[in-house]
Amino acid sequence: MDYYGSYITKLIDELKKLPGVGGKLAQRIAFHIIQLPGERADALAESITNAKRNVRYCSVCCNLTDADPCAVCSNSGRNPNEIMVVEDPRDMAAYERTNEFKGLYHVLHGAISPMNGIGPNDLRIGALLKRLQNKPADEVIIATNPNVEGEATAMYLNKILKPLEIKVTRIAHGVPVGGDLEYVDEVTLLRALQGRREM
Amino acid sequence: MDYYGSYITKLIDELKKLPGVGGKLAQRIAFHIIQLPGERADALAESITNAKRNVRYCSVCCNLTDADPCAVCSNSGRNPNEIMVVEDPRDMAAYERTNEFKGLYHVLHGAISPMNGIGPNDLRIGALLKRLQNKPADEVIIATNPNVEGEATAMYLNKILKPLEIKVTRIAHGVPVGGDLEYVDEVTLLRALQGRREM
Repeated sequence: MDYYGSYITKLIDELKKLPGVGGKLAQRIAFHIIQLPGERADALAESITNAKRNVRYCSVCCNLTDADPCAVCSNSGRNPNEIMVVEDPRDMAAYERTNEFKGLYHVLHGAISPMNGIGPNDLRIGALLKRLQNKPADEVIIATNPNVEGEATAMYLNKILKPLEIKVTRIAHGVPVGGDLEYVDEVTLLRALQGRREM
Repeated sequence: MDYYGSYITKLIDELKKLPGVGGKLAQRIAFHIIQLPGERADALAESITNAKRNVRYCSVCCNLTDADPCAVCSNSGRNPNEIMVVEDPRDMAAYERTNEFKGLYHVLHGAISPMNGIGPNDLRIGALLKRLQNKPADEVIIATNPNVEGEATAMYLNKILKPLEIKVTRIAHGVPVGGDLEYVDEVTLLRALQGRREM
């Protein structure tokens, strides 16, 4: 039954479709929106419409951007000979926050996952190949996630990039900084041992 | 730094202001919205604007509604002599889902909470008094939450409604149905004992 009237019910239904938002949270957000001052609610609605309308993919690195090429690709202070391949724009942002990597990125928008029916052709791998054929890089750093899908994607990329005679590297696996060895899983401990370095 | 471009950053900022939505969830929702088909994103934005513009308070029970009086208050099949006082429209919806209560409601929009600076004048208690003075009811059922604020509100309402010679009742406290006694807290167990009824 419709306890709240059609407008609130419609809002709750729309909110429930968002990832990570269940029925209870959708209700809570809906009532919060109704209590907001009119201009704050309009600002939220506008930011949704604007983001959807004005955001597109960077023609170089496939990152989401409102200017093409994106801010990173058009920054002449960055090294175009190092390309870091990530699954997601959020992974790129995570590396940007380290303030250390000064190369460029390539965003795949996912990882190979036969379970979910995602193959190499569903990712921006073709765009990466074309990019490297047009303008070869010295090194491609594969920074896909350290899970099954990310590893599969890394192996696939390594296989298809080898013939281009580009150095392909993978970010290191090991124990996270600040962690406690006792709580680290066995696979990570093993990888940390295998990847040990002279001090 | 602005890793995503201004439109995405603005959307993430707006989403972060919502209750229960932290930085990570805001990012996840923002990227979900950008991947949506245009009309789905527009539907979400419209539902926000529409709900904010068209929803107001019912002049009788103070519930949120798009028609005044609301669907419950204007339903002639309901008993106007029983009024259930709740804190929130969601509490009203919870009781409506039981399909048992056939009286009317009064929504306070909060509970007395000196810690948060919320006193009786910040709630719709004046509207309740005026409503009862214009059209006395046989019984007022206080269904505020079973926590400190809800109990304080119930006691306050009882005190100010007593002079009107209306029967004031409080919903029962006790062990929840389907629970396991072992995991019920002491206060609830005590209340359940005090409220025992002959079988």
